[in-house]
Amino acid sequence: MIGHAFMGRAHAQAWRTAPHFFPLPLQPVLAVVVGRDEGRARAAAENLGAEEWSIDWREVIARDDIDLVDICTPGDQHAEIAIAALRAGKHVLCEKPLARSVPEAIEMADAAVIAAESGVFAMCGFSYRRTPALALAKRFIEEGRLGQIRHVRAQYLQDWLSSSEAPLTWRLDKEKAGSGALGDIGAHSIDTAQWLTGQSIDGVSAMLRTFVTDRPVLAHQAGLGGRAEDGAERGPVTVDDAAAFTATFSGGALGVFESTRMALGRRNANRIEINGERGSVAFDFERMNELEFHDGTDPEDAQGFRRIQVTEPSHPYTGAWWPTGHGLGYEHVFTHQVVDLITAIAAGTQPSPTFAEAVQVQQVLDAVERSAADESRLTATTGPATDGSPAFQTPSMKKDPS
Amino acid sequence: MIGHAFMGRAHAQAWRTAPHFFPLPLQPVLAVVVGRDEGRARAAAENLGAEEWSIDWREVIARDDIDLVDICTPGDQHAEIAIAALRAGKHVLCEKPLARSVPEAIEMADAAVIAAESGVFAMCGFSYRRTPALALAKRFIEEGRLGQIRHVRAQYLQDWLSSSEAPLTWRLDKEKAGSGALGDIGAHSIDTAQWLTGQSIDGVSAMLRTFVTDRPVLAHQAGLGGRAEDGAERGPVTVDDAAAFTATFSGGALGVFESTRMALGRRNANRIEINGERGSVAFDFERMNELEFHDGTDPEDAQGFRRIQVTEPSHPYTGAWWPTGHGLGYEHVFTHQVVDLITAIAAGTQPSPTFAEAVQVQQVLDAVERSAADESRLTATTGPATDGSPAFQTPSMKKDPS
Amino acid sequence: MIGHAFMGRAHAQAWRTAPHFFPLPLQPVLAVVVGRDEGRARAAAENLGAEEWSIDWREVIARDDIDLVDICTPGDQHAEIAIAALRAGKHVLCEKPLARSVPEAIEMADAAVIAAESGVFAMCGFSYRRTPALALAKRFIEEGRLGQIRHVRAQYLQDWLSSSEAPLTWRLDKEKAGSGALGDIGAHSIDTAQWLTGQSIDGVSAMLRTFVTDRPVLAHQAGLGGRAEDGAERGPVTVDDAAAFTATFSGGALGVFESTRMALGRRNANRIEINGERGSVAFDFERMNELEFHDGTDPEDAQGFRRIQVTEPSHPYTGAWWPTGHGLGYEHVFTHQVVDLITAIAAGTQPSPTFAEAVQVQQVLDAVERSAADESRLTATTGPATDGSPAFQTPSMKKDPS
Amino acid sequence: MIGHAFMGRAHAQAWRTAPHFFPLPLQPVLAVVVGRDEGRARAAAENLGAEEWSIDWREVIARDDIDLVDICTPGDQHAEIAIAALRAGKHVLCEKPLARSVPEAIEMADAAVIAAESGVFAMCGFSYRRTPALALAKRFIEEGRLGQIRHVRAQYLQDWLSSSEAPLTWRLDKEKAGSGALGDIGAHSIDTAQWLTGQSIDGVSAMLRTFVTDRPVLAHQAGLGGRAEDGAERGPVTVDDAAAFTATFSGGALGVFESTRMALGRRNANRIEINGERGSVAFDFERMNELEFHDGTDPEDAQGFRRIQVTEPSHPYTGAWWPTGHGLGYEHVFTHQVVDLITAIAAGTQPSPTFAEAVQVQQVLDAVERSAADESRLTATTGPATDGSPAFQTPSMKKDPS
Repeated sequence: MIGHAFMGRAHAQAWRTAPHFFPLPLQPVLAVVVGRDEGRARAAAENLGAEEWSIDWREVIARDDIDLVDICTPGDQHAEIAIAALRAGKHVLCEKPLARSVPEAIEMADAAVIAAESGVFAMCGFSYRRTPALALAKRFIEEGRLGQIRHVRAQYLQDWLSSSEAPLTWRLDKEKAGSGALGDIGAHSIDTAQWLTGQSIDGVSAMLRTFVTDRPVLAHQAGLGGRAEDGAERGPVTVDDAAAFTATFSGGALGVFESTRMALGRRNANRIEINGERGSVAFDFERMNELEFHDGTDPEDAQGFRRIQVTEPSHPYTGAWWPTGHGLGYEHVFTHQVVDLITAIAAGTQPSPTFAEAVQVQQVLDAVERSAADESRLTATTGPATDGSPAFQTPSMKKDPS
Repeated sequence: MIGHAFMGRAHAQAWRTAPHFFPLPLQPVLAVVVGRDEGRARAAAENLGAEEWSIDWREVIARDDIDLVDICTPGDQHAEIAIAALRAGKHVLCEKPLARSVPEAIEMADAAVIAAESGVFAMCGFSYRRTPALALAKRFIEEGRLGQIRHVRAQYLQDWLSSSEAPLTWRLDKEKAGSGALGDIGAHSIDTAQWLTGQSIDGVSAMLRTFVTDRPVLAHQAGLGGRAEDGAERGPVTVDDAAAFTATFSGGALGVFESTRMALGRRNANRIEINGERGSVAFDFERMNELEFHDGTDPEDAQGFRRIQVTEPSHPYTGAWWPTGHGLGYEHVFTHQVVDLITAIAAGTQPSPTFAEAVQVQQVLDAVERSAADESRLTATTGPATDGSPAFQTPSMKKDPS
Repeated sequence: MIGHAFMGRAHAQAWRTAPHFFPLPLQPVLAVVVGRDEGRARAAAENLGAEEWSIDWREVIARDDIDLVDICTPGDQHAEIAIAALRAGKHVLCEKPLARSVPEAIEMADAAVIAAESGVFAMCGFSYRRTPALALAKRFIEEGRLGQIRHVRAQYLQDWLSSSEAPLTWRLDKEKAGSGALGDIGAHSIDTAQWLTGQSIDGVSAMLRTFVTDRPVLAHQAGLGGRAEDGAERGPVTVDDAAAFTATFSGGALGVFESTRMALGRRNANRIEINGERGSVAFDFERMNELEFHDGTDPEDAQGFRRIQVTEPSHPYTGAWWPTGHGLGYEHVFTHQVVDLITAIAAGTQPSPTFAEAVQVQQVLDAVERSAADESRLTATTGPATDGSPAFQTPSMKKDPS
Repeated sequence: MIGHAFMGRAHAQAWRTAPHFFPLPLQPVLAVVVGRDEGRARAAAENLGAEEWSIDWREVIARDDIDLVDICTPGDQHAEIAIAALRAGKHVLCEKPLARSVPEAIEMADAAVIAAESGVFAMCGFSYRRTPALALAKRFIEEGRLGQIRHVRAQYLQDWLSSSEAPLTWRLDKEKAGSGALGDIGAHSIDTAQWLTGQSIDGVSAMLRTFVTDRPVLAHQAGLGGRAEDGAERGPVTVDDAAAFTATFSGGALGVFESTRMALGRRNANRIEINGERGSVAFDFERMNELEFHDGTDPEDAQGFRRIQVTEPSHPYTGAWWPTGHGLGYEHVFTHQVVDLITAIAAGTQPSPTFAEAVQVQQVLDAVERSAADESRLTATTGPATDGSPAFQTPSMKKDPS
């Protein structure tokens, strides 16, 4: 595991926990934690339950006893590490967004396609797909309980940047993060929307906004919610605080997306609602154990959104945990991700989301940026990327390879 | 009162009810109901409690004993009647959207400006402003409890056209209605958003969509929710089923709007959320007696959206009704509208929203249509209208003339 | 109409409004408002839209042109007026609780039985039965969608007495009000629970509590929520602030009831939840346009309480009002009450709830007081009343005479 | 750890997880899992991550290398194991309800008092106290934000016995479980209510009910939600399906409690609401990451229950986990329990809840049963227990020894 901050902690808990609740064909061992700073890497390894630590990821991926590399670093290191690991014959789990740009992402996807030919697999960490309530929504849609889909409205609302005194972190630096709310949380909305509907976004019309253009610099990078000292030097914010866009879907649905870190009072409202001809679903991660479902075929006098507590044995993933009504928390989605990944690897099949799927999400992100820069004009996601590189077209591009 | 369908019934109940709950400087009398069909106008007059009926609105506005004309007809008659009434020295209350096009609306606003000089006033029926919860939100914003406003997200979701067998009505005919979901319900969102924030929308990037392009024709026009016979002839839908647009506000806020009649399960979800630097408010007309309010200055461990039941004596309008906790219904907003209108007329002051404000809403609607027709390009609301007429600029243009 | 305070205003609005929305076999005319004070009665008549006013109810019920007497006075006058009116051949609508004691209530019910023989009918104002959402719950239960009923939990929570400085009013005087939260709001819960389940309460085990035993006296009696001056004289509270009791139902259900005016933050939470073998319903008057319904026969992975917006044409009462999703308010339940009453009178049939049903509610209230005074011992509702009068047994005793 | 079913799995996950998120003064090692069946104990040890397994708990508690015994067995083994372990100098964590009867519980508490003198501590597993939202409620109450407390309403509603075909398990056998819904889930409500308010229940008036008196027997005992074969033999249910009681609190509050496994649609609704003179809190475990809080000192026009997402760094426990807005799940409360237990042991201080506190809960349970058997008569919790044993009085009896 490379990186040991917020994402590293979540992944480590998943690796440790999965074997105790799910029957796994392979037993994962968290062998090495890799960091940049010796002291902190050592402490992290101990705290996260890894056997060893290192500050040299190249050395680690060269080792024979390492089967899988889990990349939890900031976005600027994803490509280099992932490609090297795949070439070294290691399976890769890489956090999202896959890369800082479409070409970078394509390079990674190309490496993944080649690796897959020798049974080495790559997967991108769009972990929300493993939320039981969203997996149930996916089941409903696949079973036709929503019918033809018309509307997708997805919001990812946070508020940790509401104060103009919230400090500058790597997440606000375009070089490191690629983009702001758009790539960090909007990418989740895009992936979830496409995965749930089975439709891809083919055009977007977008606005980006940076409300607070400079922020206090911390001596050491702080985590989410850290506070800078008064009178601290200020540095420029080079990414968006908020992104809003409308979208056309390949199957005819109309999408409305909004991602922001400045919706005061909305701590982590990752929401999606999908309206079809026969039914609708609505979800909010702030109540992650619930799915709202409207069944248009219910008797006329008994129709309404029902609040399903997604904690039944018959629901996705939840049977392995606790009795009905005993909810799960944030980190459980990472455990499910690990379960699905290990299961696929053991079966020699490609886990999903593939890097190719992640490239396509990256193309949507890129189209959003291009549209925002071009008077919000409707912009095709399959057009040439910002830097002029051609659109990505490979056989593995199809979503949901199953 | 001209027109006696859905809106006519709501207005009539308001005229009858206002004097019993509010101290009014003038006592309204519902004198004449005007319709197109003799039998139905007579029945309506009786049912709505009017003294007389007529099928000739020109005759009615010529009468000396008529002081105010309340226009509840489909949109294609608004301009002609309103202008004639104002010229005849009658105060006018006109349903929204004011007109089918910007030039038509401007003509009406010009007539209103002239009439106002002789103390004859015109008002447009954006009735939702009189919802106590929204009036409370307005108070909070004016008092600075939200601080600088950054986000506006407004959705007006209905579902009565979800079935492709729902019949064709005048609301689906561009000639009569001007536009579809956009003008019918989106206009409310636009007015509410601008009125609440005190900012006007200056640019939009939009998509319009008609999901069902033809529908069964009824022998007689049916109201909302009517059903056509099987095998009925089908006619074309010439308006939008759904509208989605992002918007820039004059004060820097970023807006996301969605209006649809096909969000299955959402019966009348007229929602708006506004996030500021210090606080946020959220509202859903399906729970019209509640306002959600997040106060960012609350103690750190006790922050959260609070569900205010807007039924206190200290809340707007509600003190005149029932004890705390006893909610109001849909038609009460019309009663409040009548109260405000009568109060302004008696005081010789211009009631709000003025026709000029309604023109500006119309300009936003027009800009939405222009943007949608121009690859969703960001379109200025003050630019020339669809038909090339110049932008509207009059002194009375300012919102909130107070 | 006798009495013109809170209840009088609600009833008057109902009498005025019913004819405009419902086809009525008889047209009601609000002829006379009766009060105790000349000036206030005159003002009330004008404000409420009555043709005349009076301070002598005896004179009014002697008039030939009066067909129905609507009693909205404090409870100490119910019996005398109702009995006199019935004997004078006038239909009677009497607010709840019917009387201050069981014997008083029985006397009224006896008068009602005799009057009914000559087609003169009496009805008690348990108005919440006319809430569309509760009427829908009743329909579900009668259709068997809940199956055998096991649990009833009913809470009526208000908070207007939370402050120990809230003033003394007639509602806190045992002589005038009979009891406190128990009779004022608990009576509603009891009636609703029995009516919905079709089971009567046969035993109770109760606690009563007066948290604040004296309160400031107002020069003039104030309405709900009025405030006394500082340093005002204080008088004793002679009724309960809160009542809590468990109950056994005739059909085997187990009931839990709580009524209080000191549940800070709950403005008017009139709630009931009923769990059956096949389904459950839950209701809260603070969201009066909604019914929560759990259908135990739904597919296992799609079960949950659904939020039904009770505003459909197919729902009780609502088709007469507005389109789907446009909610009703508090006073509408009184309009429905008037509609049902007039319809029954015109048909020559007994309206419900009868006085006999109200006697039975009174017996439950009495049993609650007896149990509370007897160490909470389980007390039969059909036993002798507090003052030793025998249990009430008449043929008209059956609930739901249909 | 003795016992490895539902509770055993939850405890094991807690022991494994605590060290990775909390700085602990001692590092726990899950040494041995004890079961009754060799094969299943071995499998459990492996699955739960224990080093060894055993089927002889006596042998295990005799070992020198065991410091703490975690008892997760059915209730009939609690006393014997706990007392033996304490005498052997092992710290004990024992699941609730502590015992099947008051005398049994007292015996355990006596053993705990003696053990505590040599620094060996016992704690009872009322794990819900460690729910962050409830710990926050406790903080608010201690800080006086609610003022004088008047109302406690606690419901614990489940529905896994709604079907009369749900199988017989040890939880339905009085010998093994002591009581039914009362002891299993009602005990949680009682502990939570007393702990939050800082008041003890001194009297109860109760009803118990068994709706389904016999159920199909399984060849092997099934967990919650298991299903018996058709035509299976039926055995008697010897415990309550539901318990309802009113209660008086030592500080004057009035309590209403309801516990049931037959509230169809309520999967795990562990709810409590507390109303004070200045504020109120409300909680539902189905939304365990939220606390509703009403602050009566808020401005009059901005009062309402606020939905606090209890996921802030400043909230109890949550700072150790994820960023704001990323919720926890059911098993986290066990992790917090382990953290508090280890911390207290390392500091040589008595962890809470003590066995004495658990005795007092047991006394309330006993009083409920005595009241239900005595016509619901108000029954003192400090009176002699069911079997005539005297009330328990020891210095360690005080709740919250801090």
